[in-house]
Amino acid sequence: MKCFSKLSLLFLLFGMFMPGIISAQKATWMWYPGDFEIWLGNEMQNRRTERGAFFPPFWKMDSHYVLIDFHKNFELTAPEEIEIAVEGRYNVKLDGKLVFGSPAKMTIPAGKHQLNIKVHNQANVPAVYIKGKTLVSDASWLCTYEDKEWIDESGKASDQSGTIFLNAATWNFDDAQTPPSKYQLARKAVSAKKAEKSGKSLVVDFGKETFGYVRLHGLKGKGTVNVYYGESREEALATGTCETLDRKNIDSAQPVTLTLDGSRAFRYVNVECDGSVQLDSVSMDYEYQPLTYKGSFRCNDNQINKIWDVAAYTMHLTTREFFIDGIKRDRWIWSGDAYQSYLMNYYLFNDDATVRRTLWALRGKDPVTSHTNTIMDYTFYWFLGIYDYYQYTGDEKFIAQAYPRMVSMMDYVLGRRNANGFLEGLAGDWQFIDWADKLSKKGEVSFEQLLFTRSLEAMSTCARIANDKAGQEKYGKLAADMKDKFFKTFWSDDKKAIIHNRVNAQLTDNVTRYSNMFAIFFNYFTEKQKQEVKQSVLLNDKIQKITTPYMRFYELESLCTMGEQSYVLKEMKDYWGGMLDLGATSFWEEYNPAKKGADHYSMYGRPFGKSLCHAWGASPIYLLGKYYLGVKPTSPAYQTYLIEPKLGGLQWMEGDVPTHTGKIHVYCNTKEIKVKSDTGTGTLRINSKSKPSCKGAAIVTKGNGVFEMTVEKGKEYLVKYQAK
Amino acid sequence: MKCFSKLSLLFLLFGMFMPGIISAQKATWMWYPGDFEIWLGNEMQNRRTERGAFFPPFWKMDSHYVLIDFHKNFELTAPEEIEIAVEGRYNVKLDGKLVFGSPAKMTIPAGKHQLNIKVHNQANVPAVYIKGKTLVSDASWLCTYEDKEWIDESGKASDQSGTIFLNAATWNFDDAQTPPSKYQLARKAVSAKKAEKSGKSLVVDFGKETFGYVRLHGLKGKGTVNVYYGESREEALATGTCETLDRKNIDSAQPVTLTLDGSRAFRYVNVECDGSVQLDSVSMDYEYQPLTYKGSFRCNDNQINKIWDVAAYTMHLTTREFFIDGIKRDRWIWSGDAYQSYLMNYYLFNDDATVRRTLWALRGKDPVTSHTNTIMDYTFYWFLGIYDYYQYTGDEKFIAQAYPRMVSMMDYVLGRRNANGFLEGLAGDWQFIDWADKLSKKGEVSFEQLLFTRSLEAMSTCARIANDKAGQEKYGKLAADMKDKFFKTFWSDDKKAIIHNRVNAQLTDNVTRYSNMFAIFFNYFTEKQKQEVKQSVLLNDKIQKITTPYMRFYELESLCTMGEQSYVLKEMKDYWGGMLDLGATSFWEEYNPAKKGADHYSMYGRPFGKSLCHAWGASPIYLLGKYYLGVKPTSPAYQTYLIEPKLGGLQWMEGDVPTHTGKIHVYCNTKEIKVKSDTGTGTLRINSKSKPSCKGAAIVTKGNGVFEMTVEKGKEYLVKYQAK
Repeated sequence: MKCFSKLSLLFLLFGMFMPGIISAQKATWMWYPGDFEIWLGNEMQNRRTERGAFFPPFWKMDSHYVLIDFHKNFELTAPEEIEIAVEGRYNVKLDGKLVFGSPAKMTIPAGKHQLNIKVHNQANVPAVYIKGKTLVSDASWLCTYEDKEWIDESGKASDQSGTIFLNAATWNFDDAQTPPSKYQLARKAVSAKKAEKSGKSLVVDFGKETFGYVRLHGLKGKGTVNVYYGESREEALATGTCETLDRKNIDSAQPVTLTLDGSRAFRYVNVECDGSVQLDSVSMDYEYQPLTYKGSFRCNDNQINKIWDVAAYTMHLTTREFFIDGIKRDRWIWSGDAYQSYLMNYYLFNDDATVRRTLWALRGKDPVTSHTNTIMDYTFYWFLGIYDYYQYTGDEKFIAQAYPRMVSMMDYVLGRRNANGFLEGLAGDWQFIDWADKLSKKGEVSFEQLLFTRSLEAMSTCARIANDKAGQEKYGKLAADMKDKFFKTFWSDDKKAIIHNRVNAQLTDNVTRYSNMFAIFFNYFTEKQKQEVKQSVLLNDKIQKITTPYMRFYELESLCTMGEQSYVLKEMKDYWGGMLDLGATSFWEEYNPAKKGADHYSMYGRPFGKSLCHAWGASPIYLLGKYYLGVKPTSPAYQTYLIEPKLGGLQWMEGDVPTHTGKIHVYCNTKEIKVKSDTGTGTLRINSKSKPSCKGAAIVTKGNGVFEMTVEKGKEYLVKYQAK
Repeated sequence: MKCFSKLSLLFLLFGMFMPGIISAQKATWMWYPGDFEIWLGNEMQNRRTERGAFFPPFWKMDSHYVLIDFHKNFELTAPEEIEIAVEGRYNVKLDGKLVFGSPAKMTIPAGKHQLNIKVHNQANVPAVYIKGKTLVSDASWLCTYEDKEWIDESGKASDQSGTIFLNAATWNFDDAQTPPSKYQLARKAVSAKKAEKSGKSLVVDFGKETFGYVRLHGLKGKGTVNVYYGESREEALATGTCETLDRKNIDSAQPVTLTLDGSRAFRYVNVECDGSVQLDSVSMDYEYQPLTYKGSFRCNDNQINKIWDVAAYTMHLTTREFFIDGIKRDRWIWSGDAYQSYLMNYYLFNDDATVRRTLWALRGKDPVTSHTNTIMDYTFYWFLGIYDYYQYTGDEKFIAQAYPRMVSMMDYVLGRRNANGFLEGLAGDWQFIDWADKLSKKGEVSFEQLLFTRSLEAMSTCARIANDKAGQEKYGKLAADMKDKFFKTFWSDDKKAIIHNRVNAQLTDNVTRYSNMFAIFFNYFTEKQKQEVKQSVLLNDKIQKITTPYMRFYELESLCTMGEQSYVLKEMKDYWGGMLDLGATSFWEEYNPAKKGADHYSMYGRPFGKSLCHAWGASPIYLLGKYYLGVKPTSPAYQTYLIEPKLGGLQWMEGDVPTHTGKIHVYCNTKEIKVKSDTGTGTLRINSKSKPSCKGAAIVTKGNGVFEMTVEKGKEYLVKYQAK
């Protein structure tokens, strides 16, 4: 609690004296930061079903604050009528005085004023929309859940109470008629590609993995209609073991159309009627978040193009109200899965709002009683996700809003260290790391310590942004100490690798890929260590292989950071190409090339337990954008950035990487590179046998066949070079 | 958080291995402890209006947990069909396996089983009702909000996770059709006593203070009907300054009856119509909690009898879903006000459930961000209320359920101590103490330290009940240290009194009644100090007088504990009798005999700001029961108790004090005492000039004219004595 007390003043200052935050006069619904997101997260995560039974998450779900006060100080040069729309019971106070009733309109006289709107809502999130000529609801308003006594004697908000006031949160709810509680994804009607009827059964194929609401046409008679869903044909036909199904009682002499009210993931639908029930046909309402594919990638290799397309579709299907894991099973927000979605998103939709929503929903409210999703590593991915969000967006307002909950989350972690300052699994902790056989979680697992160290670095950065100087120093020192201790403890000169774990103060001789590959792209190794690890671990077949696209994401990323684009391209074609060869229309939760036939669909001991559309399967989007087109920010929000194209064996490639102020376009073949950027100041780094040339740009020689030039916003550059 | 982890195992053990908790096979709705209470508290406290505007509390309101798992392990000797009713979306797991859909009925085979019901509900509290021949929902079920990962590999509740499992909470919702969310107070139609019509206005008098919904009969025409409420006639007529009012637009050619949907407190209603609106008459629906007056008091002094009756009615009006402060204004749960209601309740309704509900609603959820109701002293009354609850009820189950939140509340307090270990007002803290002019809240206020010390003692007792041995010792030592430091710091041998406060390490010379009178009935003084304080403070007119019934409660209590019943009786007759003489039909928030006419109704700078029905005005019930009839428990739940009748100048008195297993009846005049008890083992203490006599009981002489005898359950005793 002490932390909050200290922080509150900062937020007060931040909110009150930074008029730069005040946006243009566009009215929009506002709420307490995180509350709509937590509420919507509960709604969404409670939609999972398993064979007809409700299947909610198995961790603590939090609520929005049910009573919120919103206020703003302003000056009017002329009297102004405002329109007031509110979700919840509310009152209005002008200059500390209550107004009669709950007015939907009121006129405010000219002059300086403080307007307060106080809202109570248990079922939905307290939210307010104000529209006047100059006074509108937006992120410039302050709000409080009244953590302390905060009203001064004149009935106005006091700045002496230590109360937390945050700038209100907003999104795109810009119409009084569409409040946050009415938020829905978009829908469109889609026909089936193929239908086979046999007796009482109708098997329909939609041609590819999809998501939405099945619609049954021409339904009549009396009895039950059973709808079995399949991501594979086999699953839809396996009425006893398919993962999702619906049953409806029908009693209608006249043919009717019935749209089922539960959304499901499927490619195939098997409809079986009993009694006298008959139906004509099956279609669906596809449900999706209407996002633009702002990133793109094309090259001479059509398999890679197909991989990119299917990865993008996989990403789109799993980018719903939030970034979820998979669309058939779970449909929950898992922090480790979402962390990869954030990164892929920056190279495809570049949609900040979904990242923010997901981070809020994952965090929930205080008190922290367990790790995020109950998983230790997932707590750390939450911190890392905020760190990356800041790098890609530069959104300091969000960091300041989230910082108090970062502090309490980190307090929870720090409170669980053992006598050595390391984290071990305690009662109720799950250490996931990866789905892999015989993966030890005993003692002090190096992978967890590594993520912990990185999270402390993220805390230090965010403390700086939130103006918490003491925090910046504290977390910076903790991070440096942890890093030092980590290498002293887990680095083995013998093995030339980070050891997997230490049990009862004894290092094991277990080497796994996880810590080693993360330490590479965290840039924690010396150059010498990095090269050693590449041979001793990454390219060493004796080290247990990775079979999930989840960890392949990081494995391939670490190889890319070491310039192994050619190797990675081949791996990508084998692994993701392998799924395509088996007919995948979206990428899977797990893929083991050694499996055969329908055995590919099994997992968790269930024949169709595997998700065939899993966000973590979409990593080629990220790898191709960041490590082939080679575009990444080097300061927040692409104020500065790097373009370092690597063909990795391709003849040519071309694509866009989205930023907040436009895109960065790159074309590259073995002789020419073309770049054009709408944003910031870029550095184009060229690997060339000879010194490249470019009209209108100075090429700087960096040695070892590396050259650099500056890319200005709005200019088009054509560089001649010789690919190595 | 560490506290919770340690505690959780205790609760697990408590719940799992204490089959004694399992009640009879009566099915009743169950929920997570505290959740219905917090939810209902939000509903009720958001009903306040001020002149037509919604007026919610100004502190953080918490929510119920939205996702709860309930489970029970049991054995059936024969297959059994159960009925399942649930508030919320739910699933059912039998022995770790999900059942299809959300069944309303199911048959469980014979044998050993674990049944889990998991419920999600945002708007209302997740609640479950199960009814089978032997398996029913009741307080023997365990529930969790899943603070940790808690499901083992077989899908069942694990006892290794450190998860908090509490026994489910229940009340009197014993029918599947009346779930907790439908809870309502009782209502009955009441006619007006008097009505005066003049022009467009109709003034109605209900004869006494009341509460409910006004009903307008024969309403017709077009225009507005304005309803002005008054606890006094003056208030109802003061349309511009009355505290509550309602306005309705009417447009009806035919006469209709309209019951207003907001409940209000009033004796008078002034209905004014405009436009062509007319009405015939006004009645009301009285709303009340249907409680039995189990306590009683009668004596030879009719004024005292009237005081008791009006106090009981005041208490009944303010005993709503919770113990609230007053029925016109606030209508909120204030911890300091409620604390007195608990005590009065033990001598009137003896209704445990309302005490528990009030304690839960006041506490809310973690994290603690401010004092209870934002008031430091009110935090301490919360602890004291639990301590007393245990004394009067012996309800260990509730103590165990509440203990984790007692720990986190006390952690908050301990974290706010200054370098001397004392509490000073920090930003956002309100130190109320009493409504009194020029009452200093500066520096270290002795009154707050005194309540803090007592709260630490309460913590130690409750730690023992919750099997937290380390806590028992820790809080016990903290309490002893505080008490020692308190007297060293604040006791003045010069003033023969506890000093009011210390500012910048300097004791002031300010003496107030507050700490001195509390230290008396906390029994913190030596006998010598007590007698000194009586003269130097309590009976000293130079010390600022108390003008609220709130603090008069404690002032008179401290005098009673010192045997000043005669003095207190006179004070009671003057003070409460004074209100009756002014026509009070319920007792007030404040009474200053020096005021005149309608000025009595003013407070907070508003002409009708004062509440004329305030719970803290009802203390004669408590004083007469505890210090005149003289009945109080000496061990939890009246297993042992004391009866020490004190006539205080009355000729005779007679009454009942309720306990959980019946009542204790006392009759006393100057020569005879009759007692009969349904419970425990009592000690009758008799103050007599000569040794009393009683058939069937041995009288023990204690010295100084004090005699004692044992009172057995179920026996009637007639004692002959000579009043001193």
